[in-house]
Amino acid sequence: MRNIVILVDTVGGDRGPAEIVKGCLSASKIVSHADIVLLGPEELLKSELEKSGWPSNIKIEHAPDVISMDEEPAWAVRNKSESTIVVGSRMVKDGRAQAIVTPGNTGAVMAAALLIMGRIKGISRPAILVRFPIKERETYLLDAGANVECKPENLLEFAIMANSYLSSVLKIENPSIGLLSIGEEKIKGNDLVKEAYQLLERSKLNFYGNVEGNDIPRGTVDIIVCDGYTGNIVLKLSESLVKEVFAELKTIVKNSFMGKIGGLLLKPGLKKMIKRLDYEEYGGTLLLGVNGVCVICHGSSSAKAITNAILQAVSAVEGGVVSKIKEDLKGKAFINV
Amino acid sequence: MRNIVILVDTVGGDRGPAEIVKGCLSASKIVSHADIVLLGPEELLKSELEKSGWPSNIKIEHAPDVISMDEEPAWAVRNKSESTIVVGSRMVKDGRAQAIVTPGNTGAVMAAALLIMGRIKGISRPAILVRFPIKERETYLLDAGANVECKPENLLEFAIMANSYLSSVLKIENPSIGLLSIGEEKIKGNDLVKEAYQLLERSKLNFYGNVEGNDIPRGTVDIIVCDGYTGNIVLKLSESLVKEVFAELKTIVKNSFMGKIGGLLLKPGLKKMIKRLDYEEYGGTLLLGVNGVCVICHGSSSAKAITNAILQAVSAVEGGVVSKIKEDLKGKAFINV
Repeated sequence: MRNIVILVDTVGGDRGPAEIVKGCLSASKIVSHADIVLLGPEELLKSELEKSGWPSNIKIEHAPDVISMDEEPAWAVRNKSESTIVVGSRMVKDGRAQAIVTPGNTGAVMAAALLIMGRIKGISRPAILVRFPIKERETYLLDAGANVECKPENLLEFAIMANSYLSSVLKIENPSIGLLSIGEEKIKGNDLVKEAYQLLERSKLNFYGNVEGNDIPRGTVDIIVCDGYTGNIVLKLSESLVKEVFAELKTIVKNSFMGKIGGLLLKPGLKKMIKRLDYEEYGGTLLLGVNGVCVICHGSSSAKAITNAILQAVSAVEGGVVSKIKEDLKGKAFINV
Repeated sequence: MRNIVILVDTVGGDRGPAEIVKGCLSASKIVSHADIVLLGPEELLKSELEKSGWPSNIKIEHAPDVISMDEEPAWAVRNKSESTIVVGSRMVKDGRAQAIVTPGNTGAVMAAALLIMGRIKGISRPAILVRFPIKERETYLLDAGANVECKPENLLEFAIMANSYLSSVLKIENPSIGLLSIGEEKIKGNDLVKEAYQLLERSKLNFYGNVEGNDIPRGTVDIIVCDGYTGNIVLKLSESLVKEVFAELKTIVKNSFMGKIGGLLLKPGLKKMIKRLDYEEYGGTLLLGVNGVCVICHGSSSAKAITNAILQAVSAVEGGVVSKIKEDLKGKAFINV
């Protein structure tokens, strides 16, 4: 069997390539059956790898250009054909790789995925899936920002894609799916939600019904679907709120001698909790609905985040998420209309 | 000068009237210049007050009926003319009181306020204002759920109303106003947000521009405006997320002997933090845009929450928020179109 090939964008993020390469090196030991291909300027990457010892499953693909964070996505993808994101997307398109991991410009990653890899037939709008690590039982939410305006059919597609991912990659059988609204009853919500409810109710998915804001951290369902405007706000609010609460806890610990001792005594438990809440432990977000696996990481991703994103990409490829989505859409298996 | 009259719905909430009356008794000592009128069945309230001693500034208004939590709001308001919410709204309309505080059915409160007190001229959609207590510098957000579908003009009205409240009642001069979106740039967001941006930019309000989900707990601006679908999700998510984090902390503290000692040492600091995050400390949410002051509390409000909601209502009446909104709308003082 051919090795899995995972591409990693080493220059698209806010940190230098050294940090990203470090993450790739750690990953290469864990997934020795996968080839990790570094995208970036060849000479630069060679010198990085020579510094640290060059594992046999790490390769380089020369991509001398980079799309920066503030460039207009569609323009950049059309004009920067030698950029890491474009070179990588082409390699996935050509079947030379199965996944790309990138801390780069999210808009450009989406544009390249759409324009080069292409949408999966039957999916009109690819969407970004994020993991909420608050509860032991995890919740996955989409769309976290790819589509600010949505139609009811889009939300149904999001539900189908997330269902394919959770069942094929995470091996969660028949995951429960909630629709984000402002009341349990099916008459609650805006027009989009009320119409999407009808579609989801008629589908063969395991539709739970409406969930509310307070259900997100509670882990009431496995999957939550919403439009990308709401999802993006939910994602950023959650990350920031947890950060602020911990910052305040830190101040309490540091503000007095007793506090410092108290903090020390609680450290083992707190560490575990912080680890669970730390996005770096889980890699990145997944762009679902395109012909390839795309893991989009934070721009400032550390080596650890990159390692985990690579592992996530390997799981997604091994779980066959792209073909599972195609299969689930075939004959509209989940649509009972 | 005539006393301020604050009405309190004693039977609309999930807890019995005893708890609510207890909250009124505490408040009556703090705001001795205000009359607190208990709405509910007269005999029941009399016996409650006789048990505990009856302060001279607590009165009773007989309202034998109640709108329950699951009744259809508009229907209930039209048909239950002797319910606490309807009796109270009529008293505000007739000028016999200036404010109503209620832990009752939110939809019914809104319906009664709209149908009986009436909208302020120039406001097409009243909105619910909530306070985010995360940061030392507070943030107020509206709409927290009154309007699931909004037009750009509604968001401008929300901004004007919140501006009137913060300047007249909270004495915050020229409060900064952010528009909830998914990126800083004015081209970011859904159609509603992009159009509202244009209106807010042209207004004479202190418009900061777009804010994102992570700005909410950071307290980047004084006021955040958004549609009621998004605002309701933001509110419920925030409350629940903080609760879950604290529940987990509690488990860490309780799970080991060392943890218990650590928890004890951190207690003074934690207590202050929990107090600041506790919604009961701040009463309820305010329905802005109707001809009267409406404070809507959690259905399960404790005596403490009711006391604080009464204080909040007194401040809103004393600050003259209703006439300030009217004045600010007159000649569209803030609209530069």
